[in-house]
Amino acid sequence: MDRRRNATKQGIRLKLYEALAQEIEDLVAQQALRPGDRLPSVRQQQARRGVSPATVFQAYYLLEARGVIESRPRSGYYVARRLPDGAPPQPQASRPAVEAAAVDVSALVFDVLEAARNRSAVPFGSAFPSPLLFPLERLARETASAMRRLDPWSTVADLAPGNDELRRQVALRYQLDGAPVAPDDIVITNGAMEALNLCLQAVTRPGDTVLVESPAFYAALQALERLGLNAVEVATDPRDGMDLGALAQALERHRPAACWLMTSFQNPLGSLMPPEKKQALVELLARHEVPMIEDDVYGELYFGARRPALAKRYDRHGLVMHCGSFSKCLAPGFRIGWAAPGRQARAVERLKLSTSLACAMPSQLALAGYLAQGGYDRHLRQLRAALEAQRDAMLMAVARHFPAGTRATRPEGGYFLWLELPEGTDALALQRAALERGISIAPGPMFSARREYRHCLRLNYGHPWSAELEGAMGVLGGLAAT
Amino acid sequence: MDRRRNATKQGIRLKLYEALAQEIEDLVAQQALRPGDRLPSVRQQQARRGVSPATVFQAYYLLEARGVIESRPRSGYYVARRLPDGAPPQPQASRPAVEAAAVDVSALVFDVLEAARNRSAVPFGSAFPSPLLFPLERLARETASAMRRLDPWSTVADLAPGNDELRRQVALRYQLDGAPVAPDDIVITNGAMEALNLCLQAVTRPGDTVLVESPAFYAALQALERLGLNAVEVATDPRDGMDLGALAQALERHRPAACWLMTSFQNPLGSLMPPEKKQALVELLARHEVPMIEDDVYGELYFGARRPALAKRYDRHGLVMHCGSFSKCLAPGFRIGWAAPGRQARAVERLKLSTSLACAMPSQLALAGYLAQGGYDRHLRQLRAALEAQRDAMLMAVARHFPAGTRATRPEGGYFLWLELPEGTDALALQRAALERGISIAPGPMFSARREYRHCLRLNYGHPWSAELEGAMGVLGGLAAT
Repeated sequence: MDRRRNATKQGIRLKLYEALAQEIEDLVAQQALRPGDRLPSVRQQQARRGVSPATVFQAYYLLEARGVIESRPRSGYYVARRLPDGAPPQPQASRPAVEAAAVDVSALVFDVLEAARNRSAVPFGSAFPSPLLFPLERLARETASAMRRLDPWSTVADLAPGNDELRRQVALRYQLDGAPVAPDDIVITNGAMEALNLCLQAVTRPGDTVLVESPAFYAALQALERLGLNAVEVATDPRDGMDLGALAQALERHRPAACWLMTSFQNPLGSLMPPEKKQALVELLARHEVPMIEDDVYGELYFGARRPALAKRYDRHGLVMHCGSFSKCLAPGFRIGWAAPGRQARAVERLKLSTSLACAMPSQLALAGYLAQGGYDRHLRQLRAALEAQRDAMLMAVARHFPAGTRATRPEGGYFLWLELPEGTDALALQRAALERGISIAPGPMFSARREYRHCLRLNYGHPWSAELEGAMGVLGGLAAT
Repeated sequence: MDRRRNATKQGIRLKLYEALAQEIEDLVAQQALRPGDRLPSVRQQQARRGVSPATVFQAYYLLEARGVIESRPRSGYYVARRLPDGAPPQPQASRPAVEAAAVDVSALVFDVLEAARNRSAVPFGSAFPSPLLFPLERLARETASAMRRLDPWSTVADLAPGNDELRRQVALRYQLDGAPVAPDDIVITNGAMEALNLCLQAVTRPGDTVLVESPAFYAALQALERLGLNAVEVATDPRDGMDLGALAQALERHRPAACWLMTSFQNPLGSLMPPEKKQALVELLARHEVPMIEDDVYGELYFGARRPALAKRYDRHGLVMHCGSFSKCLAPGFRIGWAAPGRQARAVERLKLSTSLACAMPSQLALAGYLAQGGYDRHLRQLRAALEAQRDAMLMAVARHFPAGTRATRPEGGYFLWLELPEGTDALALQRAALERGISIAPGPMFSARREYRHCLRLNYGHPWSAELEGAMGVLGGLAAT
C-alpha cells in the first residue's frame, strides 16, 4: 500500500494516472473507501481534480487490474468486495500421477448422480444452480412467440449447424468477448456436453491420450472412457488453473491428441486462469500442434468486473475448440449449447449431423428470440450477484461447521466449492452417510481417472441460502468430523 | 377369383365365413365393388343375411389378410385401393458382396446432403416429408401451454431417461402395438438418430462387424463408420425385406456384434417384412444371441389396414432395441425420438447421460401434452392418405417419364421410391445434372458401404403432388434417358 511513498523515496517519478491510482488504493487501505463503495465518476474526477478523462480511465483500469476496484456496466466503478474474514484456508495445487491411465470412473459417477437425483435431498451434490435463478417465465413467452412465427420449412432445412439467427446471436457475443467467430463456424448442439463430445471425437481416435486438469470434470472423464481414450491428469492450482510447467512435460512425454480444459471457473476447483496465462497456454499447445478443447460453460458466471478472457481469443491457428452453453446461465432444460471448433468446424458439423442431426427447433427459436430482445446481460448481473452472495454464505458455513484443517477454494465465479478435508477422511463414506441424512454431495474420486481425491468433495452453492442449507452444512460438518 | 367354385367342384365344403368372403372377392373381381367402395357394415350383413356378427368379422378379416379389403378405424371396411395399371415393374432382391467392409461413404453422403439443402430445389432427394403435412399450429399451442405450466425443477431433475409423462405416452403406444414396454425402459433421445447411435454404441466395440440391409440407410452406414465398425450388407428384397437365408449365412460367417434393420418401410427400399418373417428374424438372431437394432421410424406411415407388427413384439430375450421418433410422423424439428433397448436399457440411459445429458424440455413437454390431448391418430390417418396418393402420383410419373427398363418399388408405407435405372446409368452423374436443373435426388451409392447401386436412386414422394413436381419428373426422366 506504500508503493507511491516507496517509489518517491526511491526517486522514481510516478506518472499522473499511477499517482491517482495510488491515492485511491491508499484510501481503500485506510478504509476511507470500503468494499462496495462507489468511486467518483470520471466526470467528477475531471471536474474536481482538473485531470483529463484519459488519466482517470487509466488509473481506474490499473486499479481494476490490481483487483482493488471493479466496474459495473452502466453504473460505474466500485471498491471490490473482499471475502469476509475467517474464511477457511485454500487448498494447494494438485500433484497427480504423471502416467496415462485408462479411465474407469463412469460407474461411480452414475451411482452418485442417481443417488443425487432425489428431489427432496439438499442439493450440495447437484451439478446445476437453482432453476429459480433463471427467467423461466420470460423464456416461456419467447418460446410461445417463436412457435407462432415458425416457418414450417425451417423444421427440415435448419439442420446442423443450427438456426441461423441463434448462431448470429452467439457470434455477436464472441465479438464482444474479443474473440470474433463467424456464424458459419458455430455449431449449435444439445448442450455443451454434446459440443465437447463432438469436438473430442473430431480430433481423437481410440487409444489416444488426452490431457485434463486434476481434479477434472467427471463428464470429461466419462467422455474419454466412452471413446476408449487414456487420460493424463495435469497438476492444477485451485487459484489459477493448470500448471503450465507440468503441462509442458506432459506434452513432451505423452504426445497427446488433445487437451481438455476449463480455463474459467473450472469444475470442480473454480480456478480462473489469468489472461496472460491463457495466452501462454494457447501458445504452448500451438507449438506442439495439440488441439485444445476449451470447456467454458461457467465463463459468464464471473464475480469480477468483466468476463474472463477466452483462451480462444489468443488462438492464431484455429486449434482452440471453444464450447459454451445456455444451460448454466440462462435456460436450463432447453439443452442448447454450441461449439466454435476453429479449423475443425466442418468436421464437428458433420459429426453433429450423423450423431443427432439437429437441435430442437422450439429451444433454438426461443433463445434466438430472447437474445435478440435484450435483457440477457441484466439477467446475468442478477444471477452473478446471487451466486457470489451464496458463495460467501457457504464459505462461512464451512468455517463454522467443518473440522479444523479443512481447506476450501475461493472461486471468483461459477457455483462450486472444492473442499479438502483432513487427510484420512473418506469422502465416499461421507457421501453415503450424508445421503442417509438427506444431503447430496459430490465426492472427490468422481473427479479423477484413478479415483483419487479421496478426502475431497465438491459442494454446490448455486441455491439461495437458507436456514435449511445452513443446517445441512452443520450436519455435513459434523459427519466430516467423525 | 374362382376359389369357391373350384372348391365346390372339388367337393370341398367351404365354411360359412369363407363362402361369404369368396362372394365379396368375386364382386370385387367383377368390379361390382370398386377400389375405395365401402363394404356393408357388420350390422347390415347380419340383418340382411341372417349370419352372426362373428361370421361377418371372420370373413372380413380373411379378406383383409388377402389384401382385398382394408379397414379404416371408426369408419368401416373398404375395398382396397390397387395401384393404377401401368406402374413400372419392381426391382429384384439385392445380391451384395458377402465380405465385411470398412465403411467409407460419409463424405459422399455429406456432399449430397449439402447440395440438397438448397431450399429452392425440387426435394426428391430430401430425407423428410413436406412440413406442411404436420399439425405445426397445434404443436405451437401445445408448446406454449406446456411452457406456462413448466415446473422449474423439472429442468434439472428430468435428465436422461427423459420426461415421465412423455415416456408414459410412448409406453401406451407400445402397449397398443402389442409389444408392452415399461416407461422406465424407454429412453427419450434427440430424434431416432441419437437413439440408434446410442443403441449401437451399447453393444459394439471398434472393429466389430454389424449386419445391415442392402441397400442400407446411409445414416446407419455413417454411424458404423464413425464408430470404427465394419459393415456386412445382407441381400434384401424390395417387397419383404432382408433375406433370412442370407442372414443366417452372414451370422455364421461373421459373428456380428449387432444387426441393424428397418423392418417396416425400409429406407430406401420401402420393403415391409411380414409378421411371421419378423418373428423368424427375431428367433434366428436370438439363437445367435445377436442384438437387433430395430429402426422403426416409418412404421406409423402405413397404407394398409393397420400398423405393421414390431419385430420387438416377438422378442423374448430383451435383445431387440426398438427405436422410434416423432420427427417423420408428427413433429419435425422437435428432435424427439426414443429407444426401448430391452436388456440394454440401463446402458443406453447412461450413454445418453454422458453423450448429451438430456433432451430439450420444451419439445418433450409439448409432445407429452399433445399425445395426452388426443388427435394423434386422426392426424396420422390424414398423413397416410396424403402419402399414399403421392406415391401413386410419383409411380405413374416414373412410368410416364423414365426410360424403358426402369424399375420402381411399390412401398406400402413411408415416402420413398427406389428406382433401378437401366444398367450403365450413372446415378452420381444424374444427381449432378439434376441439381443443375434445380432438382435434388439421392443417388444409389449413398446407400452402400461399397458405394454400389450405381444405377439406382431414391426419390422422395413426401410432398403434395403438383405440376411443378410432375414437370421435374419429366426433366429427371429425360436426363436419365441420355
